[in-house]
Amino acid sequence: MPNLLSSLPAKLPDELTETLVEAKHIRIERIVSQGHASSYGFWYDQSENEFVLLVQGAARLRFEDSVVEMMPGDWLNIPAHQRHRVEWAAPDEKTVWLAVFYEGTKRTD
Amino acid sequence: MPNLLSSLPAKLPDELTETLVEAKHIRIERIVSQGHASSYGFWYDQSENEFVLLVQGAARLRFEDSVVEMMPGDWLNIPAHQRHRVEWAAPDEKTVWLAVFYEGTKRTD
Repeated sequence: MPNLLSSLPAKLPDELTETLVEAKHIRIERIVSQGHASSYGFWYDQSENEFVLLVQGAARLRFEDSVVEMMPGDWLNIPAHQRHRVEWAAPDEKTVWLAVFYEGTKRTD
Repeated sequence: MPNLLSSLPAKLPDELTETLVEAKHIRIERIVSQGHASSYGFWYDQSENEFVLLVQGAARLRFEDSVVEMMPGDWLNIPAHQRHRVEWAAPDEKTVWLAVFYEGTKRTD
């Protein structure tokens, strides 16, 4: 039985992304970070929508007009092209996310 | 900030299902159960694939050829039409699932 909280690497020089499921219209990933923030000036601007659940740890996301703190169980639905960045992730524990990327309803590509 | 582990009803006479996100090809639900099992002889036989993550609690699922115990962090990808049933869910705590239903790659409907 695969478990989101197991097989966490002891050292994590970079954020770790693994694809759990990939199908025609969606991709489900586990993302593990520890103290990783987006590079200075970098913003995610994704062509897919993203549902993201913080499973373990803590993080802070910045949107163009707001900042949100995320704790275990917190989830967000980020529409495609809503710019955001990871401003902070807990330095002393591994933060584990489940992310579901999916096509929007209004895209024609 | 919505949280999967908050707003859990004090009493739960039936399993509680809430849709968090619905788009053209997917539906993301929170499912909360406490001691609920599938009815005698009932099997889920779904037209959509289901990715399911046990976030809190414990449960046992039965497939036609196996039984799996699920703990927090455990996840499964259940292909469409793979028959399964919930055989047991913890009676003394609330079991919280995140379920992502999505269309398959081989369906033509």
